[in-house]
Amino acid sequence: MADYKVAIIGTGNVATNLALALETGGHFITEIYGRDLAQAMDLANRLYETEPQDYLDFSESEAGVFFICVSDNAITQVVEHLVLPENAIVVHTAGSVPIDVLDSIATFNGVFYPLQSLSKSRVISFENVPICIEASTNEVKAVLIDLATSMSNFVYELNSEERNAAHLAAVFINNFSNHLFALASDIAKDSELPSEIFNALIIETAQKAIELGPDAAQTGPAKRGDKKVVQKQLKQLSHNAKLQSIYLSMSESIANRYGVDLA
Amino acid sequence: MADYKVAIIGTGNVATNLALALETGGHFITEIYGRDLAQAMDLANRLYETEPQDYLDFSESEAGVFFICVSDNAITQVVEHLVLPENAIVVHTAGSVPIDVLDSIATFNGVFYPLQSLSKSRVISFENVPICIEASTNEVKAVLIDLATSMSNFVYELNSEERNAAHLAAVFINNFSNHLFALASDIAKDSELPSEIFNALIIETAQKAIELGPDAAQTGPAKRGDKKVVQKQLKQLSHNAKLQSIYLSMSESIANRYGVDLA
Repeated sequence: MADYKVAIIGTGNVATNLALALETGGHFITEIYGRDLAQAMDLANRLYETEPQDYLDFSESEAGVFFICVSDNAITQVVEHLVLPENAIVVHTAGSVPIDVLDSIATFNGVFYPLQSLSKSRVISFENVPICIEASTNEVKAVLIDLATSMSNFVYELNSEERNAAHLAAVFINNFSNHLFALASDIAKDSELPSEIFNALIIETAQKAIELGPDAAQTGPAKRGDKKVVQKQLKQLSHNAKLQSIYLSMSESIANRYGVDLA
Repeated sequence: MADYKVAIIGTGNVATNLALALETGGHFITEIYGRDLAQAMDLANRLYETEPQDYLDFSESEAGVFFICVSDNAITQVVEHLVLPENAIVVHTAGSVPIDVLDSIATFNGVFYPLQSLSKSRVISFENVPICIEASTNEVKAVLIDLATSMSNFVYELNSEERNAAHLAAVFINNFSNHLFALASDIAKDSELPSEIFNALIIETAQKAIELGPDAAQTGPAKRGDKKVVQKQLKQLSHNAKLQSIYLSMSESIANRYGVDLA
């Protein structure tokens, strides 16, 4: 497996986690680009002999692979200003952006999408992070597989449409569930319950869904069609119309899925 | 710590898990009651010298503690017909039912609520399952603490109002999140994605929320206020109005919480 020289464009959640995972995978991070030089320096300082820079001209860079790790919205802007060395490979890391946004800057382009919720404040091992790759040529594909397998045991080839679906599913799984945890913690705080009381439930929710599958794992009043509890809990939420509406639509969706009646 | 003789009323998810956890905790299950004798026999057969029965007259029972583990709706009906030995303790195991529904059958009553998603098909260790207890007298409290600590390291005293809040929060955390996993698996199936591709994300969603807290753990387009991705994903769901409406209300709730604008 070859070691690569790579440059990272971005300093956020994905850039931070990916830069550190690439270095752990044996690769050399030549440069970190950030609009804000201070942020680029912060990340570069966590890496081995990496240069921070706040300009997008990489014509003098020794990197062979360039990772665009900026928010989906900012990719087009980066693409407009990016100057790459000849024959460089450029990839973006966004779930819901098609591969062809990169066609205008490089023939050798691709997508390197880590299917995980990444935060700067929680740098994680990439060993179990699924890496979804897409490549414009077979040469690029070989390099991306090489890079992906150097850090993860789970590498998938997904085209842009499949990646869209994966990203959408991930929003339901992670973004929305995590938000439910936040709403639940509000409910718990209102009654001064200790927050750690829910830790075992949060973990078991994940493990149970994986082991049984979510349909066999489903429990609760909506699944049982227990109208009395559902009505009572709706009343408990009467001070908060938004929470009440989420409760109702989720309960109806569950009841609907399992063919029970809540009305 | 005393070993108790207990009887279990019910044969469902909670009854099964609790009976096995009580036995593991060193207690003796004298009888299992089920409306359907065959189901009572099934559970009794998994226990040590336990008698199945399909009638609610326990006047001859040697048990000192009776666990009502039937669905919330059925508790009143059981209470109406239950005949207990003198001085017996009776508890129910429901999150959203007040303690006083038991006042008519026994002075010594209480609640023994395991704050966990329990299924017959997945018998779990109770070591980390929070047990929330409430008791009508100090004597009952001592017995319930004894029983709870014999199986779990996490024992809480919650009154009926606090337990209501805990149960409501648990519905958001477990029932609704698990349902989101089911909806996500539909999305994945539509695009023929391998279901295991989401396992790492499901686990990390849980671990990250516990370690960082759900607010610091939140990521995704709604949190970033990325209207373009949100609009695109809404369009992806245009074939399914119900899914679209859940996507929209969850995204708006997230945007609202973090003060970003999606409109």
